Order: sequence, then structure tokens, then C-alpha cells
Amino acid sequence: MSSTDLHHMHSALALATRAQGRVSPNPRVGAVLVKDGQVVGQGWHRGPGTPHAEIAALHEAGPAAKGATLYVTLEPCRHFGRTPPCTQALIAAGVTRVVAAIEDPNPAEQGNGIAELRTAGIEVAVGLEAAAAEEMNRPYFTWRREGRPLVTAKWASALCGHAAARTGESLYITGPEARQEVHRLRADHDAVMVGIGTVLADDPQLTVRDASGEHPLRVVLDRALRTPPEARILSAPGRTLICAAEDAPAERKAALGDRAELLFFPPGPELPLSQVLAEIARRDVLSVLVEGGPTLLGRLFDAGLVDRVQAFFAPLVIGGAGAPAAVAGLGAVRPAEGVRLRDIEWRQYGRDICCSANVERG
Amino acid sequence: MSSTDLHHMHSALALATRAQGRVSPNPRVGAVLVKDGQVVGQGWHRGPGTPHAEIAALHEAGPAAKGATLYVTLEPCRHFGRTPPCTQALIAAGVTRVVAAIEDPNPAEQGNGIAELRTAGIEVAVGLEAAAAEEMNRPYFTWRREGRPLVTAKWASALCGHAAARTGESLYITGPEARQEVHRLRADHDAVMVGIGTVLADDPQLTVRDASGEHPLRVVLDRALRTPPEARILSAPGRTLICAAEDAPAERKAALGDRAELLFFPPGPELPLSQVLAEIARRDVLSVLVEGGPTLLGRLFDAGLVDRVQAFFAPLVIGGAGAPAAVAGLGAVRPAEGVRLRDIEWRQYGRDICCSANVERG
Repeated sequence: MSSTDLHHMHSALALATRAQGRVSPNPRVGAVLVKDGQVVGQGWHRGPGTPHAEIAALHEAGPAAKGATLYVTLEPCRHFGRTPPCTQALIAAGVTRVVAAIEDPNPAEQGNGIAELRTAGIEVAVGLEAAAAEEMNRPYFTWRREGRPLVTAKWASALCGHAAARTGESLYITGPEARQEVHRLRADHDAVMVGIGTVLADDPQLTVRDASGEHPLRVVLDRALRTPPEARILSAPGRTLICAAEDAPAERKAALGDRAELLFFPPGPELPLSQVLAEIARRDVLSVLVEGGPTLLGRLFDAGLVDRVQAFFAPLVIGGAGAPAAVAGLGAVRPAEGVRLRDIEWRQYGRDICCSANVERG
Repeated sequence: MSSTDLHHMHSALALATRAQGRVSPNPRVGAVLVKDGQVVGQGWHRGPGTPHAEIAALHEAGPAAKGATLYVTLEPCRHFGRTPPCTQALIAAGVTRVVAAIEDPNPAEQGNGIAELRTAGIEVAVGLEAAAAEEMNRPYFTWRREGRPLVTAKWASALCGHAAARTGESLYITGPEARQEVHRLRADHDAVMVGIGTVLADDPQLTVRDASGEHPLRVVLDRALRTPPEARILSAPGRTLICAAEDAPAERKAALGDRAELLFFPPGPELPLSQVLAEIARRDVLSVLVEGGPTLLGRLFDAGLVDRVQAFFAPLVIGGAGAPAAVAGLGAVRPAEGVRLRDIEWRQYGRDICCSANVERG
């Protein structure tokens, strides 16, 4: 690879980020067509049902695509989905070289697109800036590889470490700037998730209000269907999915069935989190922001199901021996055995601060 | 006041900060002598037993002090302490105008120095940059006005809000950069304080190792004298003061009496914190860094005895429903009724962050 290749791949990566809002269940992709050192076409994917990045670039290039090199942030598709395959279009346009950042983890692709291009006599190189290409589509890669959405745990605590007072009240710990950032996070995720405890304690709406973007799907873990029919989560704009146990009371099923979509799981003392995540992944949820209380967050950490954290702290001391910290569950035996984080970023929002980080994998 | 006055007062404030290490029980003071627009002398107080800032400035000016204006960050003293009074020296030198930032809260002064200067025909103005002058000597002002040291509560938590794992282990939550900052904080304080719980759980030394400066006095709240004779706090360099109840077991008194200074308080279920603070104030402790566990910190917050916080957070998730947050005690009924903070500063130390703030007073 030359420094020219690197330069054009960086352009393609930058293009990929241009899509407004969420593109789920598709990945973000950018593409640049270069001929004789000149950029002759570029494109990016704008969302389901719209042309793929490669097609947009070919369209812009027109006849100039013949003999050109394509730089693309993901292996071109060769299967018929909502749109026809990109591989055929690239072959037909006479592109002679393809530089792709990374293979598509979609089982329908996974090298098949690359193989098809090579069979057609196109020179193909894969792996340039693979890490950056994967990072920008982490929800997509997690969804394809693990069959579950990327899970981001979000919480807010006072300086003393408490996420609520001893009475359980947790409202208004952080200030308006931090709350706005939470709304931006919601707009970035396909779904938000809470446990029934949070619904009963705070009656949240979980909508995008202080930011622009679509409301995420709201997922409530409510084994026994205790969500009150007047809960704001049921009347707020957007969709709500309640995950319950099959043996939840019939009258509760009847009371909530026309107010939200109900999804049932095998009976037991707790809902099976992995199954819940797999089920919402099947509904094209690639990313979920868990705004749960200490119980749900504790269960997710104990199960190793958290990929990212967004932890807010407000300069306020609540105190109280009986007040809860943000993450319950079983936890670690000693600090050194806790969940390690990497890619730490501290960012201030008004008087508050937020730590964004990725969970370190064994 | 003119902008020239302000300029010279800022110089005096800057000089006051030059003293190396702690100057307790004295305040930090800076002084500038100006004649015909020229600085003819300047000085700062270097610590107990050394000349006051005004005297140092007079010494530098020599005969040029006659007819000069003195800018000083605190009312000049008029009482005989370790050194003779500054007021007499200023009068004798022929200084004609004194601009002082703030009155000395020392009951032996409190305007008396100013009155004496005025009686001698010197023009005196008080109040220029009073807030800055008080802020730089907060321990001294708190000590003089409230008869107790300035109390800074320091703690470290994981992102989940826990200050220890469910087993009680709290070691090595933060990284080396944050630990070094804690050593700098120790060097800045006249004393550090912990409860017996911390001594038994962590066996800390509480010395200044990763920074330069003197070891602070170590104060242990240990009602029943449970400190083990082999505790590192007893053999580490520096002095240790153990606060106990009068009815602590006689054999424990005998076992610890030659290893540390013991200070006794009335019997009761808990040591009286206000009395403990008053007692160490009487021993010229103007500032105390409380590195206590959740119990001691909770009691101090409940009693309204915390002036400043230094809260460290490490990007690590411990979790655990039974693990303690940093501040126990009774706490607030709801977040909005928690302890409010002002002058918030977030500063990163390696991967960790620290919030420094002052407690908002009613």
C-alpha cells in the first residue's frame, strides 16, 4: 500500500461518517473512485433502501469509472438485499482495482464479494485501516459476529458514588448539559433499555427531546408485567417493547397488550439477558443504551455483556449508608479484579463530567 | 483605589504564595513598598519565627521606605508574638499609606493594627482583593473564625461509585499519577485523619512519599484503641495522634501509649467530631485532609464539617450490591437536598480524574 492509498482510504472513512442519524441495520460505508491520481467519484451510504456507497461513487464517476481504483471502507456486497449487489456494478463499470478496509462480517458476504471481484480479474487488497473501519461500525460488527447489539451502559452518580438517595430517588443528579448529552446518546442508539425498577421509581419517557434524531426503541425488562398502564413510557412518541416471562399474570398481559409490544421468555426468577439481547438483535437492533438502575447494570456486568460505558458524575454529595451505587450485582472480589476499561475519555458537560470507555476483553 | 493600587496588590498576592511548604500556624502574607511609582521593597512570610512580609519589605527598602505606600495581603500585626509588631516598624520607617487586602481574623488583631496605624497619621485602606486574600489563606481564616481546621474530604472510587469491593478491599483503585497527587495533598495539609476502620482494612502509612514536603500529623479516630501495635501508622516517619474515648481499655492505653500520643474524649458510642477538631486546632493544625472510609466521611458530611472535597474516580467497574460507596452516614433524603459544591474543577491524573470543589454554605 502506498501513502496515496492511505490518503484515499482516509477520505473514504471520512465520507462514511456523513450519514445523518442511524443507518441500522446497515453499516456506515464510504467510497472513493480514483483514476490517474484524480478523484472521479465519491459516495456514502445514507441508510436502508438507498444506494450503497460504491453505487453512489460509480454514479458520480459515470464513464470515468473505467480503469479506476475503488477505495471502500467495507467489502463490497455481492448479495441481493434491498438493493442489487455492488460487485456486479463494479465489474460492469470496468473498475480495475479495489482497496477495501475490512471484510464484511455478514455471513452472506465474508470474503465472497472479494472473491467474486478477483474472479472477474479485478485486483483486490483488503486490510488498509481495518481497525478504524471496524471501530466506526462497532454496533454492526458486534451484531453480525455475536448475534446481539452493542451494549452501552449509561449511568449518573453523585461524587459520593450514589446513583440515588437512600429513598431511591435519583432524579436531577446531573445538570442540563449532561442531560442533553444523554438525549444525543439516545438518538445514536437503536434502542434504550431499562428495568421495571427504573420505570416504577422514575417514570421516564426515554425519548429524544433535547437533541435531534429519531426516538430509539424502548425496551423494558419487566418479568411480571408490573409496568403501570399510565407509565409515560407507554404514551411517549416512539415504540415500546416489554420483555416479560411467559407466566406473567394473564390480566397484566391483557392490560398492557394493546399499549406496547410484549415479548415473552421462559419463566424463571430473572429474565435471560442473553436471550433478550438476541431477540432484539433479530429485530434489527444493533445498539442498545442501557439506562438501567443498579440491578440491571449489575446483571449485565456480571454476565460480561457490556461493551461500552458512559458514566456521568455530578459535583454533589448525597451520602447515606443505605443509598445505592450505580452498579449492583455480584461484582468483583477485589478492585484489581474489576472490569477493566480502555480508550478512556473524560469530557465535561457544564459542571458534570462523563467517562466514555470501552470494556477490555479478556 | 486606582489601577496602580490593584497592580501592586496583585504583586503582593503573588509574593505571598512564594513560601515553600506549610507556614502554619501563620498565614501566607506578601508585601510591596512603592514610592514615587517605583517598587522599593518587597517581602513575603517564610514561616513561623521568620520576619513578617512587611518587615522583609522594609528591610529591602531601607531609608527609601520613608514616604512610601505599603501594599500588604493582610492587616499588619500590632501584637508581640514570636516577632515584634509590624505596626511599630511601619510607623518608625515613615510609611505614609497602607493598603491592606483584608483584616486579620486573629482576635488579637481584628482592626487593631489598622487603628494603630491611623492613630499614627498613616492613611489606611482595607478591602482591595479581600476575597483573593482570604481564599489563599482559607485554613488560617477557618481556624481563627471557627476554632477548627479547614476540613478537606478526600476519597477515591471506581466508575461504579464503589470505594471498595464487597469484601472491603479498597487498595489500588487509582493509578500512580493520582496517588502522587494524594501525596502532594498530604504535604499541603497540617494533618491527615482516618478512622480505625481504614487502619484495620488498609494499614496505610499516610506519609509523603511520592512528593516533596513534610509528613503531616496523622490523626486516628479510634474510640476503643483498637489500633494494632504493629500498624504501619505507628512506625512510619512523622507523628501520630490517636483520639480515643476515656473509657477505652486500660491495657490498650498501656499498649499504645508509648507508640503514639493519645488524646481522650468523653465516653459515648462515637467520638465527638467537633471536639476532636477543636482539640487538634489547639495544637496549631489549620488544615486536615480526611482520608477516611465511608463511615468517617459520612459522619463529617452529616455534621456539616466538610469545607472542601477532592474526589478521585478511576475507570474501573467493581460492582456488587454489598460494596460501599465513598460516603455513608445518614445522607440526604433526595439528590436535590445533597451537599452542593462550588468552584468545581475537574483535573485528569493519568487515566483517573479528580474533582476539587468547595462546599457551598447555606
